[in-house]
Amino acid sequence: MEKPTTAKGTRDFGPSKMYRRLYILNVIRKLFTQHGFQPLETPAMENLSTLTGKYGDEGDQLMFKILNSGDFLQDVSLQDVNAKKLVPQIAEKALRYDLTVPFARFVATNRNDIQFPFKRYQIQPVWRADRPQKGRYREFYQCDADVVGTDSLLCEQELMEMAHEVLLSLGLKEFAIKINNRKVLTGITDTIGEPGKEAIMCVAIDKLDKIGKDGVEKELLERGIAPAAIALLLPTLEIKGDSREKINGLREVLKDSQVGLKGLEELEKVFDFLEATVPDHKMIFDPALARGLSYYTGAIFEIKALGVQMGSISGGGRYDNLTGIFGLPNVSGVGISFGIDRLYDVMEELQLFPEITEFGTQILIVPMDESVVGFALKSAQTLREVGATVELYPEPGAKMKKQLGYADARQIPFVGIIGSDEMQTGVVSLKNLKTGEQEKLNLESLKIKFSKQKSV
Amino acid sequence: MEKPTTAKGTRDFGPSKMYRRLYILNVIRKLFTQHGFQPLETPAMENLSTLTGKYGDEGDQLMFKILNSGDFLQDVSLQDVNAKKLVPQIAEKALRYDLTVPFARFVATNRNDIQFPFKRYQIQPVWRADRPQKGRYREFYQCDADVVGTDSLLCEQELMEMAHEVLLSLGLKEFAIKINNRKVLTGITDTIGEPGKEAIMCVAIDKLDKIGKDGVEKELLERGIAPAAIALLLPTLEIKGDSREKINGLREVLKDSQVGLKGLEELEKVFDFLEATVPDHKMIFDPALARGLSYYTGAIFEIKALGVQMGSISGGGRYDNLTGIFGLPNVSGVGISFGIDRLYDVMEELQLFPEITEFGTQILIVPMDESVVGFALKSAQTLREVGATVELYPEPGAKMKKQLGYADARQIPFVGIIGSDEMQTGVVSLKNLKTGEQEKLNLESLKIKFSKQKSV
Repeated sequence: MEKPTTAKGTRDFGPSKMYRRLYILNVIRKLFTQHGFQPLETPAMENLSTLTGKYGDEGDQLMFKILNSGDFLQDVSLQDVNAKKLVPQIAEKALRYDLTVPFARFVATNRNDIQFPFKRYQIQPVWRADRPQKGRYREFYQCDADVVGTDSLLCEQELMEMAHEVLLSLGLKEFAIKINNRKVLTGITDTIGEPGKEAIMCVAIDKLDKIGKDGVEKELLERGIAPAAIALLLPTLEIKGDSREKINGLREVLKDSQVGLKGLEELEKVFDFLEATVPDHKMIFDPALARGLSYYTGAIFEIKALGVQMGSISGGGRYDNLTGIFGLPNVSGVGISFGIDRLYDVMEELQLFPEITEFGTQILIVPMDESVVGFALKSAQTLREVGATVELYPEPGAKMKKQLGYADARQIPFVGIIGSDEMQTGVVSLKNLKTGEQEKLNLESLKIKFSKQKSV
Repeated sequence: MEKPTTAKGTRDFGPSKMYRRLYILNVIRKLFTQHGFQPLETPAMENLSTLTGKYGDEGDQLMFKILNSGDFLQDVSLQDVNAKKLVPQIAEKALRYDLTVPFARFVATNRNDIQFPFKRYQIQPVWRADRPQKGRYREFYQCDADVVGTDSLLCEQELMEMAHEVLLSLGLKEFAIKINNRKVLTGITDTIGEPGKEAIMCVAIDKLDKIGKDGVEKELLERGIAPAAIALLLPTLEIKGDSREKINGLREVLKDSQVGLKGLEELEKVFDFLEATVPDHKMIFDPALARGLSYYTGAIFEIKALGVQMGSISGGGRYDNLTGIFGLPNVSGVGISFGIDRLYDVMEELQLFPEITEFGTQILIVPMDESVVGFALKSAQTLREVGATVELYPEPGAKMKKQLGYADARQIPFVGIIGSDEMQTGVVSLKNLKTGEQEKLNLESLKIKFSKQKSV
């Protein structure tokens, strides 16, 4: 029989990956919580009508639809049918495609019970029928925090501060938080004489890092932006200086655009608010940052780890009408999303994860035969009561080589051997597998040795 | 526009439910880890061939299938087609129906990399197209721990000990851990002259609690068990005495059944092992316990909370051939599963959850106007550094009534007011919203007051 496999584009997370993923998620969850963001989980499946049309044609295509249960062909005519026409007749539900639309649906559904401003975080998998490739999967976790129901720029400040704390807590030192404002981009299109073309401009300049200035110029031409406008545009994206200097520089360029000046004012305020809590050099105003989305209406931000080849590990922005699609207008919000897979890869490359022994079993208790099992079980229980992680090898009297091999393969640092001598004198023969040292310790001494509390 | 809803049979978990669910899961995860069980996550979707035929016809029916993406009708003939015939042609994948089959698939897939005995835990949602009703959902979490690759009865002991610790840690005091052994059931069918009829007998006696002795008798008759056999059977299920006495009583009844005596020997050994760590009165040998499954080959167990109307909150047992279906024979295992929804309901009914203030925000910082925001942000950051959960009301200068209303609705116990006086003297006016008391504290005093570390 062939070995069974996971479905295409999906992954198992075995123990060593899971320990590290849980480590990342616990740091994030703790900091989200400390900032008053509250946990939310929504169902994996939503009504198709909730999701359709929210992610463009491509999103509708890539959404995994769930076949109706039972006799799903009842009342369905198969005359002249094609896949696209058939889908809504045989599939009423689809899998979550991101966390934002389900969140908007939740807010709209529970509008009367929610206390605004509403701060929620959500850590759940999403599914997309993308063609799998390196670093792109059909199932992956998103990790979002959003504040909705206020347009205060202190929310932008808080998300930046929180992201800064998350990355420092994970041991990342070199990273840049880039920030821009959609209104600045609008101001630029107005100023260069291509009003309303932000979407086209954003898509092109979003690729500046990848395809360079010439590539962007070519793409803008192809998309019908006038050469004169492009000539005005490109220098504005390359204004030099620190963030404050760039803001002031653009103030001059955008002096005739009210919306552009408003964007700069918002940016400046976010920088002012950030002064108390985030070092200035971590924050970079980048007028070329667009994140390809017509979705954002105010702040846009993105975080990159420096010194590793990796796309952004976090991003987000402000949107002014999250829940309008569900009949609840005028709810402004701002959110941030962490890419767990990318964070994982960055941390692995920079060797920022704690040793596996920090997560796993600290001591393997080895009963020499069945007569000492009671004492062995009691010893293990006593150590767990002080917070230790303890296994008991389940086959008393198995060859010592086999048991030590198990400890070794599992990277368990200590083995506690218990024979009848040990039981009679109330001690455990503790062997350090790294150094080979061995000592006899009573339960009180063992408790002290292994009582260091670990966070799991 | 109508308010959007969740898909039938699925639920949102808003903040107050999430806090409590995370509380339960953290307790379980911590104890699983302390016993050396390692985390595993498998994908939500598996190849249809991995799942089909593993849960009987009903399971195949209730499994949610995922429509192939793209032009799924290509190469599909719609001539003379019906739903059942069409499914495998248009759906290659299905959603996880339980955690056991994906676990077996994982073990078979990774057989060469796994160190046996392999102890894993898995906490993930599963999906079933059941008709929704009170307490039954189409999406629900399972929470499983299994040991595979050894037939040592110390594994049964460990699962019972661990379950005992989990329930005590959650504050549950009154509960019963019922245990039986499939071999005892086999011994009984042999002895009453209906060999091989365990499956029928199990299904019937599994309902003993619900339909009573008469109901079971009727069902057994209907299913073709001879009246003489039933007359022999029923008294064995009602043998009196404590667990040891019941084991000894059955030894007499099953004296001619080798397999039955083996089952009793296994049971006795598990009770012996448990003596060191679990109080005797918590463990009950119940020869009528069957859990309706032909699947188990050794121990069978089930846990009920006493004093509440609720089915079992946990159950499990030993199976001798988990991975045989995937081409890896002779892997014995034993597992336990916790029902998170039921545990939640039991804890709510018995009021065992900590106050919401234990989970949520401890202090709301209220800046009186924008000029003090820097000091307010710095104060909040300082408190978070000692572990406190702190929010800052994002609209400086909003009406005090609005801000206090927010704190009240969110059940935040303290408000820290900061005006220009406070900023100049480096203090925060701390108001206890429950008592109304107010005091001015500098940051050092605040740090001491709010430095109690919380586990989230």
